[in-house]
Amino acid sequence: MSVHRNESTARWEGPDTSATRGPSVHVHRMEIETTKRVEIRDLTERVQEIVRAKGVEAGLVTLSSMHTTTAVFVNEPQSALLDDVEQLLERLAPRGEEWKHNDPRYSDCDRHNADAHLRAIVLGSSVTLQVADGALTMGQWQRVLMAELDGPRKRGLVLQVLAAA
Amino acid sequence: MSVHRNESTARWEGPDTSATRGPSVHVHRMEIETTKRVEIRDLTERVQEIVRAKGVEAGLVTLSSMHTTTAVFVNEPQSALLDDVEQLLERLAPRGEEWKHNDPRYSDCDRHNADAHLRAIVLGSSVTLQVADGALTMGQWQRVLMAELDGPRKRGLVLQVLAAA
Amino acid sequence: MSVHRNESTARWEGPDTSATRGPSVHVHRMEIETTKRVEIRDLTERVQEIVRAKGVEAGLVTLSSMHTTTAVFVNEPQSALLDDVEQLLERLAPRGEEWKHNDPRYSDCDRHNADAHLRAIVLGSSVTLQVADGALTMGQWQRVLMAELDGPRKRGLVLQVLAAA
Repeated sequence: MSVHRNESTARWEGPDTSATRGPSVHVHRMEIETTKRVEIRDLTERVQEIVRAKGVEAGLVTLSSMHTTTAVFVNEPQSALLDDVEQLLERLAPRGEEWKHNDPRYSDCDRHNADAHLRAIVLGSSVTLQVADGALTMGQWQRVLMAELDGPRKRGLVLQVLAAA
Repeated sequence: MSVHRNESTARWEGPDTSATRGPSVHVHRMEIETTKRVEIRDLTERVQEIVRAKGVEAGLVTLSSMHTTTAVFVNEPQSALLDDVEQLLERLAPRGEEWKHNDPRYSDCDRHNADAHLRAIVLGSSVTLQVADGALTMGQWQRVLMAELDGPRKRGLVLQVLAAA
Repeated sequence: MSVHRNESTARWEGPDTSATRGPSVHVHRMEIETTKRVEIRDLTERVQEIVRAKGVEAGLVTLSSMHTTTAVFVNEPQSALLDDVEQLLERLAPRGEEWKHNDPRYSDCDRHNADAHLRAIVLGSSVTLQVADGALTMGQWQRVLMAELDGPRKRGLVLQVLAAA
């Protein structure tokens, strides 16, 4: 059993030999700089690259947002559909609603971002993906997506690969 | 560490001996033929049977939809309640709304299934379940459910058992 | 590989030595007594304490509700925001809607709790968290929260720590 930790993707140097030594955990911190208040980013290639670089054959990948106003989920990043997702989020948790979290009588939060918290709760804060044959097990149209809900900001996510082989 | 892969449940031949050799990963592809546009199916028995057939004592089961218009979640499949779930989904993401994904000016998708994508995002694409004492750790009324949201179609799900014992 | 099972937190006796013997699974059943119909509870310290007590260095924690009218999710338990979460749930699945699950013509459930099931489905029944360096990998404002949606009742959750080291 061994734990490999890289603080940034810059340090990867391709597959290592840990996979032959038994079950192991690889941890990577990802930083994403978002550019809009609400924005959905496709992280699939970055996740796949980490799995590949570590030479992981089979196991689980957990990708977790470290924030309460971002989310991680799986779907298709078609441009028109992503606009619809934003429209859905506005339907479910409208930005202009009179939320208590935005009201100085009840809250000391000066970001007025109740909608962002509520949307993050609906979307979910992490995903767990399967790895088999050295690749993510995903359908043809599926991608791992991060939703920025109160940007633009620098955001952190942590990815763990629990490698069984 | 060993990886067992069966492409269909037809090939199971009961418990094997892998559990005694240490941590292992078992992967099964499930095919479900749905019969309606929106339909919720109980997969609990199939999942439980795979866990049992492999002789897995403890670990995690991840069941993932391979589609962007189906979902997997846990709740109770009472018939009246499943009608309510469909009603909820229509409330949250109405089929008749003017979604961009359905509009030829913005999208080349001819299935006009924006509602199905959006509902899948709210429900979630996978579940991770615990295994202990050779069985799924679930409450009395809990079942693993698949939601078809743009059927009828043949659908694929992949189940991974990460067996610790 | 070893499986440790404690039925209550009362039996913990601090870190054991299992972590040095290779991958292992620890299972804990938690009981939470809720005091209102809808109530959100912060379970982070209890989860963290179990990880610490077992001396787990790295791996996954899965916390699963055993009920179809409670949920588990990650966000910030600021008091004003928790009121907003309740408001969100009432928007998404109003208690007073004419749900079939509450209608004796379609359902034999006498709790009239369709809203609670539907809200639990939106929030999700479990979370999977990462463990690294002996602690939960979570952001500054993130907490593991349980939502009681049809209380007050005594509720059970099961926590599994899949320890890789």
